[in-house]
Amino acid sequence: MSLKRYLPILDWGARYDRDTATSDAVAAVIVTIMLIPQSLAYAMLAGLPPEVGLYASIAPLILYAVFGTSRALAVGPVAVVSLMTAAAVGQVAAQGTPEYWGAAIALALMSGLMLTAMGLLRLGFMANFLSHPVISGFITASGIIIAASQLKHILGVKAGGHNLAEVLASLAQTIGDANPITAVIGVSVAAFLFWARKRLKPLLIAKGLRPRLADVIAKAGPVMAVAASTLAVWGLGLHERGVAIVGAIPSGLPPLALPSLDPALWSSLAVSALLISVVGFEISSAEAQTLAAKRRQRIVPDQELIGLGAANIGAAFTGGFPVTGGFARSVVNFDAGAETPAAGAFTAVGILLAALLLTPLLYFLPVATLAATIIVAVLSLVDLGALRRTWAYSRPDFAAQLATIALTLGFGVEAGILAGVGLSIFLHLYTSSRPHVAVLGLVPGSEHFRNIRRHDVVTAPHVLMMRIDESLYFANARFLEDHVADAVAADPALRHVVLMCSAVNEIDASALESLEAIDQRLKAAGLRLHLSEVKGPVMDRLKRTDFLDHLSGDVFLTQYDAFHALAPAIADAARRAERRDTARPPAQAAQ
Amino acid sequence: MSLKRYLPILDWGARYDRDTATSDAVAAVIVTIMLIPQSLAYAMLAGLPPEVGLYASIAPLILYAVFGTSRALAVGPVAVVSLMTAAAVGQVAAQGTPEYWGAAIALALMSGLMLTAMGLLRLGFMANFLSHPVISGFITASGIIIAASQLKHILGVKAGGHNLAEVLASLAQTIGDANPITAVIGVSVAAFLFWARKRLKPLLIAKGLRPRLADVIAKAGPVMAVAASTLAVWGLGLHERGVAIVGAIPSGLPPLALPSLDPALWSSLAVSALLISVVGFEISSAEAQTLAAKRRQRIVPDQELIGLGAANIGAAFTGGFPVTGGFARSVVNFDAGAETPAAGAFTAVGILLAALLLTPLLYFLPVATLAATIIVAVLSLVDLGALRRTWAYSRPDFAAQLATIALTLGFGVEAGILAGVGLSIFLHLYTSSRPHVAVLGLVPGSEHFRNIRRHDVVTAPHVLMMRIDESLYFANARFLEDHVADAVAADPALRHVVLMCSAVNEIDASALESLEAIDQRLKAAGLRLHLSEVKGPVMDRLKRTDFLDHLSGDVFLTQYDAFHALAPAIADAARRAERRDTARPPAQAAQ
Repeated sequence: MSLKRYLPILDWGARYDRDTATSDAVAAVIVTIMLIPQSLAYAMLAGLPPEVGLYASIAPLILYAVFGTSRALAVGPVAVVSLMTAAAVGQVAAQGTPEYWGAAIALALMSGLMLTAMGLLRLGFMANFLSHPVISGFITASGIIIAASQLKHILGVKAGGHNLAEVLASLAQTIGDANPITAVIGVSVAAFLFWARKRLKPLLIAKGLRPRLADVIAKAGPVMAVAASTLAVWGLGLHERGVAIVGAIPSGLPPLALPSLDPALWSSLAVSALLISVVGFEISSAEAQTLAAKRRQRIVPDQELIGLGAANIGAAFTGGFPVTGGFARSVVNFDAGAETPAAGAFTAVGILLAALLLTPLLYFLPVATLAATIIVAVLSLVDLGALRRTWAYSRPDFAAQLATIALTLGFGVEAGILAGVGLSIFLHLYTSSRPHVAVLGLVPGSEHFRNIRRHDVVTAPHVLMMRIDESLYFANARFLEDHVADAVAADPALRHVVLMCSAVNEIDASALESLEAIDQRLKAAGLRLHLSEVKGPVMDRLKRTDFLDHLSGDVFLTQYDAFHALAPAIADAARRAERRDTARPPAQAAQ
Repeated sequence: MSLKRYLPILDWGARYDRDTATSDAVAAVIVTIMLIPQSLAYAMLAGLPPEVGLYASIAPLILYAVFGTSRALAVGPVAVVSLMTAAAVGQVAAQGTPEYWGAAIALALMSGLMLTAMGLLRLGFMANFLSHPVISGFITASGIIIAASQLKHILGVKAGGHNLAEVLASLAQTIGDANPITAVIGVSVAAFLFWARKRLKPLLIAKGLRPRLADVIAKAGPVMAVAASTLAVWGLGLHERGVAIVGAIPSGLPPLALPSLDPALWSSLAVSALLISVVGFEISSAEAQTLAAKRRQRIVPDQELIGLGAANIGAAFTGGFPVTGGFARSVVNFDAGAETPAAGAFTAVGILLAALLLTPLLYFLPVATLAATIIVAVLSLVDLGALRRTWAYSRPDFAAQLATIALTLGFGVEAGILAGVGLSIFLHLYTSSRPHVAVLGLVPGSEHFRNIRRHDVVTAPHVLMMRIDESLYFANARFLEDHVADAVAADPALRHVVLMCSAVNEIDASALESLEAIDQRLKAAGLRLHLSEVKGPVMDRLKRTDFLDHLSGDVFLTQYDAFHALAPAIADAARRAERRDTARPPAQAAQ
């Protein structure tokens, strides 16, 4: 049982049969065709030789098939993680050197170990600290940076830059050197891919193809572009007219090698590895969860961490770079009928065959074609409309999202993601540090209490009744003290304060001390503090302390009990009064 | 009106009369007597010449009287802030050098500017990020470190060390060099002060003194000890037998000087200044709040920041070091009858007179006496019992408190406070990332829903009803997705999921996306998602999005409405059934 938990393959592998194998194999063929150009392109994006992309698409897929829990997730290089790899490794080594490749390998190992450790220690919740607006803003900004960084390959110029402004400035300076043939190839391929993505599938269906076949052909757009542009360069000898080509890719098995264990390298890559791990897990598990739910399957987040960890460790020992579950690929895998993680293992065999046999065919592949593939893929990730939607729903989330986008574009991926996480946490603490507090009165003719500002309610001059709409913890404990102190200082007639705790899910030690301080201060000023409608679990914990023994007032089961005990004449009269407010049903009474 | 807000003196000053002045002056005399030895001792603790303690007790008090909102807070050097000053300044300069004093002055200026800025920008809530267990643990650990660091003066040895282990090891090495006469003075003074603190007041009352006078005399214990030990050294010539004395203290006005604005110094002290500001504000405002509440006065936290900020800026321009409101002193000030901040200004005059006239009398004051004063004062801050109380109430708070104490003792004040704050926030996010979720059933014969694990309730096989006891935000959004996915995957008979939101005070953008994802996944699997008892403000925000338009199910006003709509036959039968569970009143029904 425990072994099955850590090796999900024992579970689905035991029931594996010929039908399932056929489905998985069909899906694997389609994903392989899609993955070949992607893996070359994302290796280029990460600043690595193209064959490294193939290496990162073999062992990781097999290891994920053994350890992962998603039936349809297609693991391998993905755009955002490749960009983060380039940013991290670029800080410790120069592109094109063996040290650069070595650092990328070490990064994959570190990320793999971190993911595995997080899975074994059940720390998957750490990925939750990336809020959705932050991750969405980060992916949008990454997409923009990636697209901008590939424009140089489309134009055939040598531009550089570490952030968006530098990249664009460098492009503007070098655009005069653009190679027209390269630009024609790049722009045509990009246009074709955009067209294929939007129009090819409906066109093929209109021509009478079955929708599923039409979909597969449309998804194979990048492969067609690779084939056509490679043939064009070879046939017309365009590489002799300045068109950059991929050139000789060493064919053969991935290299088995021990990654660098240099402590200096590891410590300088540690934060990057953690960010890559968390972002990679976040991207991957959202996709895995969505696909699993479609078939009422489940993924186990902590085991997913182990699966992705194993994949990255596998990448590191076979010359690859950090990988995770890819969005578009996984959908294709699922739609093509993949039923078990074996589809991923079959894909690995396909890529292995490509690495052994196909690399000579890629010699004349124009770099501009790969760049166009990347641009079309990442622009679908860019979602600037999210800013408008977030603004409409939540200002703090909008601030975190905008900061993430701005800092990612301006200062790079790590600054952006760290600022986004920090700001999310800060703003969460800030908003919950100023909770909504309603002063309550009794609705005549009922036992319901409502905000005196919004409703026509009955109050007693010597009783202040307040409802706090938030758990009480360190960030708002002081607020509560100040709030009660202000209310009491403003009204000398008060003798009782009742805190209605129906929305208080927790009272931490800070808040408990604040309640004690409030109680003592009220007592010193001749008032009594009462609580009402305290939730069961909160009450259980309060009973473990001596707070209730010292409390100047009482704990009432209902707010009406409290009001009736402290102001019986007013409560009775109000209850007997005709109910004037009947619009809202009981469920909304406490709001 | 606005000017009065920023200059509270305009408010109380307008009504100032002779009676109030008399009360304030009496309190000022008593506080002055108490503050003279304290200010000398805390300057020594901060590693500064004794007269700096006097300088820090003049201008800051006058400025706080102008800008502060507490009527009784006695501002000046305090033990914990002096320790933090020594730790911060010790990193950039050597004790006894002009650079050391200059850095302490710059620290006061930075802290003053930060406090003022926090007040003007209304960032007082940042002090809330120090949870009570963390601040209590920090003060306890600081008290232990301070007491240990003063033992060398009691013994008359030259010991050093930056954390508790080093201090104790250094003491153990040097104890052989102890000066017996110094040790006799130090131990006798400490014993006398402990006795005076505990026994002198009851003794004087038993002898027939009025309690208030007895209290004042008992609080003057340190002054008596200073006088007696100074006379003993002078009369017996003990300074010639190895007893360290304070020596010549320059008499005169505090020096008016421009603090250093060196950017390198400022950047290396920035974090320390922020921590000193936040800790100082935290200590001070808890005290100010307690004293204000006793007379139903109010303090304005943001204006308190400006008051303390002005005090520290004043300290910086008059050769002082960081100050804040002192605990024991403020209580004495309050008990002695201080009615307005003018009492602080009168105290400043008293200290100014001491700086002009009394310093020659302090020449023979033994350093051991000051050390004993410090030890007795700080040991009252040490509260190791808090660990036990926190453990009993809250494990996360206990972890944060223990970490704060351990790291403060082991690695110093800044590491301790930062670890405590970081751990508090992390554990808050962690606990709220795994909220309590109850699966609900209908209590027969009622419209109440309770946890199926704890109660005998009625459910429908095709309807899953869950109540989430936490606001939904980024840290638990993913948890909710996983939780629903698991529940649905485990039960193929389900057709409806109802989330009861009575305890959900907020749904942030991440949680909204998670709800959308849950809804889409349920829809894809042939289920519908419903909500019930959504709070008014939460519903208002949901209505600003298109979530409710796309929601596969409905939003019900009450949980019973939902159950009745989705399983009418079962709901009707259960409602008509005899109620078996009558123990709990309606207010507790939802728990």
